[in-house]
Amino acid sequence: MTLIAPHGGTLVNRMASRAIDEVSVLRKIQVDEIALSDIRQIGMGAFSPLTGFMEESDYREVVERMRLVSGLLWSLPVVLPVSQDIASRTELGERLVLCDQHGVAHAVLTVNSIYRPNLHTDVSLIYGTNDMDHPGVNVTLHRGDIYLGGPVTVIPNPGADPFSEYAHTPEEARSYFEQRGWKTIVGFQTRNPIHRAHEYIQKCALETVDGLYIHPLVGPTKDDDVPAELRMRAYHAVIHHYYPQGRVLLGAYTAAMRYAGPREAILHALVRKNFGCTHFIVGRDHAGVGNYYGTYDAQHIFQSFTAEEIGIIPLFFEHAFYCTSCAGMATTKTCPHGEQSRVILSGTKVRSMLVQGMAPPPEFSRPEVVSVLMEFYEKFAAQV
Amino acid sequence: MTLIAPHGGTLVNRMASRAIDEVSVLRKIQVDEIALSDIRQIGMGAFSPLTGFMEESDYREVVERMRLVSGLLWSLPVVLPVSQDIASRTELGERLVLCDQHGVAHAVLTVNSIYRPNLHTDVSLIYGTNDMDHPGVNVTLHRGDIYLGGPVTVIPNPGADPFSEYAHTPEEARSYFEQRGWKTIVGFQTRNPIHRAHEYIQKCALETVDGLYIHPLVGPTKDDDVPAELRMRAYHAVIHHYYPQGRVLLGAYTAAMRYAGPREAILHALVRKNFGCTHFIVGRDHAGVGNYYGTYDAQHIFQSFTAEEIGIIPLFFEHAFYCTSCAGMATTKTCPHGEQSRVILSGTKVRSMLVQGMAPPPEFSRPEVVSVLMEFYEKFAAQV
Repeated sequence: MTLIAPHGGTLVNRMASRAIDEVSVLRKIQVDEIALSDIRQIGMGAFSPLTGFMEESDYREVVERMRLVSGLLWSLPVVLPVSQDIASRTELGERLVLCDQHGVAHAVLTVNSIYRPNLHTDVSLIYGTNDMDHPGVNVTLHRGDIYLGGPVTVIPNPGADPFSEYAHTPEEARSYFEQRGWKTIVGFQTRNPIHRAHEYIQKCALETVDGLYIHPLVGPTKDDDVPAELRMRAYHAVIHHYYPQGRVLLGAYTAAMRYAGPREAILHALVRKNFGCTHFIVGRDHAGVGNYYGTYDAQHIFQSFTAEEIGIIPLFFEHAFYCTSCAGMATTKTCPHGEQSRVILSGTKVRSMLVQGMAPPPEFSRPEVVSVLMEFYEKFAAQV
Repeated sequence: MTLIAPHGGTLVNRMASRAIDEVSVLRKIQVDEIALSDIRQIGMGAFSPLTGFMEESDYREVVERMRLVSGLLWSLPVVLPVSQDIASRTELGERLVLCDQHGVAHAVLTVNSIYRPNLHTDVSLIYGTNDMDHPGVNVTLHRGDIYLGGPVTVIPNPGADPFSEYAHTPEEARSYFEQRGWKTIVGFQTRNPIHRAHEYIQKCALETVDGLYIHPLVGPTKDDDVPAELRMRAYHAVIHHYYPQGRVLLGAYTAAMRYAGPREAILHALVRKNFGCTHFIVGRDHAGVGNYYGTYDAQHIFQSFTAEEIGIIPLFFEHAFYCTSCAGMATTKTCPHGEQSRVILSGTKVRSMLVQGMAPPPEFSRPEVVSVLMEFYEKFAAQV
């Protein structure tokens, strides 16, 4: 193994290697989509070194100091909230089966910790705000008041993973990189469709490393984000037409979006280290939402930690645009020309063009991406 | 000082702070243009930790192991060759005044070492060939058979430096970077005019650091390289029109070109570390000439040393070109399209177009650069 070490040194694997006989006799509880996506990450080691949902001691350290009890950097809670009712019927040491809404078992949790977070103060520490309009705050305050913590054993559910063709485990991604002989790999996180600005940033980064891992988040997002299925199709189209096949791998990051800005940027970087990436792209407003975070907060937070404890190298980028005077893609760091030379469209403007059946210019978006998006927005327009 | 440490830890300054009275009474010897350019580098600390011309022990270690006697990485000899005649009249411990062809004194050398290199075997170690057609080999075999080594004290010659406006000392460059608040700076070495390919690579690198130090070599080169004065004008024009003023500094690296390929790439990187750069661009065929080096030799050599002993981070790039299918600049790492989409012109082709008064296309070269080059080649064509 010549690739970068996973966070904490060892790649976790919590997948059950065979059927768990006890499942039929243990008590079952239903968990939400976010918990299910966390179970996936824990099972495959994407959240290494986490082996389960956080116990109280780790939770408090993470919320207050962005570290696990071991001292290892970790920026966001990974917790299992339950109702008062369920909590009152659960005993320490008990083993519970975690099921989806259809009653399908996804994991067995050994309950080592039952605790009540200080939710209203904790959300401010985690998200930097307690505004209920913040989608992360809102979800956190509504998921449940009591947390169960402890290790999980994950039950394989072939076919249950969204985008299973692309939903590599860290081990699979690492194996792919090794087979290709890539030593340096840059990871790219997004929850948005790919426009030329993203392509430019990815390719800038790719120029100085061996390979690019495009790893869009396809787990639970807020309702007005573009659906993952559509984004994956757009990514597939643009990679097919504009990327050398030997230099890029498209994956699907099945975790939930937290919208926690700076803290989530750190999480996104650590997770990509687990997937074998040596570099990670951090744009402006990474993992942000609304105006809750400063434009560069998600970049500056990396300076709170040493390069060694982060391990993966963050690459910070500005917003990119096509400049007619440069006759190429650029950012404010590399282009001296004014606004009048720059092809910049807001997300709102692009959506309104697409709903009206108008294609954004090729300087903004590849025609192959536009046609995928238009197909979607046509339906959307018809429904409205 | 928050900037990167110079090579070996301390920035050397061998400039005499006041007039050296002895100069009038010491014996004078004339040295060549390469020695004069080396004296400049030693004086200002560009060659830190070197404090003079290499003594025999350092020379042998560098030739055979790319290290100084101290163990510190150093890839190319910096030596003062003299004739048999001069050597026979020189004594160990003697102080000599080193003069240019006009008799102007540039430095005082304390002769600690007089030695005869194994020139014919050493050139093979240094350049990887003993072919007399290699310009570095040729110069090395003709400069002199006996080397004088020892520390130098450099006599300031205001106005004697070529491109004095741009010929920053490492201290001046570092001070500029600090004033700008740049923490990460990428250095770019070239001995060629700037075309869009170079601009693309520089800007790719700039996207992820704070500043760009364009540092063309303006010291002695072979006769058929484009004259430094012309290259500096072209750089000035392109920076003025296409680079944000707050992100780029144009300097002039007054050292001589060695054409030593991989070994010179290491030297170029270490020198830029002394100038305060944290990153250094290494292209294909860096510092190469003819077909003496493999395309990637100058990139691969960096893997012979640890990241710590190199200190500066090398950024390896492929050749760049405009691709009509991508509608932008790219390299084979980032563009999947075929030759038919790529605007690629050989140096020979470009020169022949310019001599005939034809402008290379804007996808290849900025019009502002073309007009500088055409002015030169017109004269050249008229002379032919």
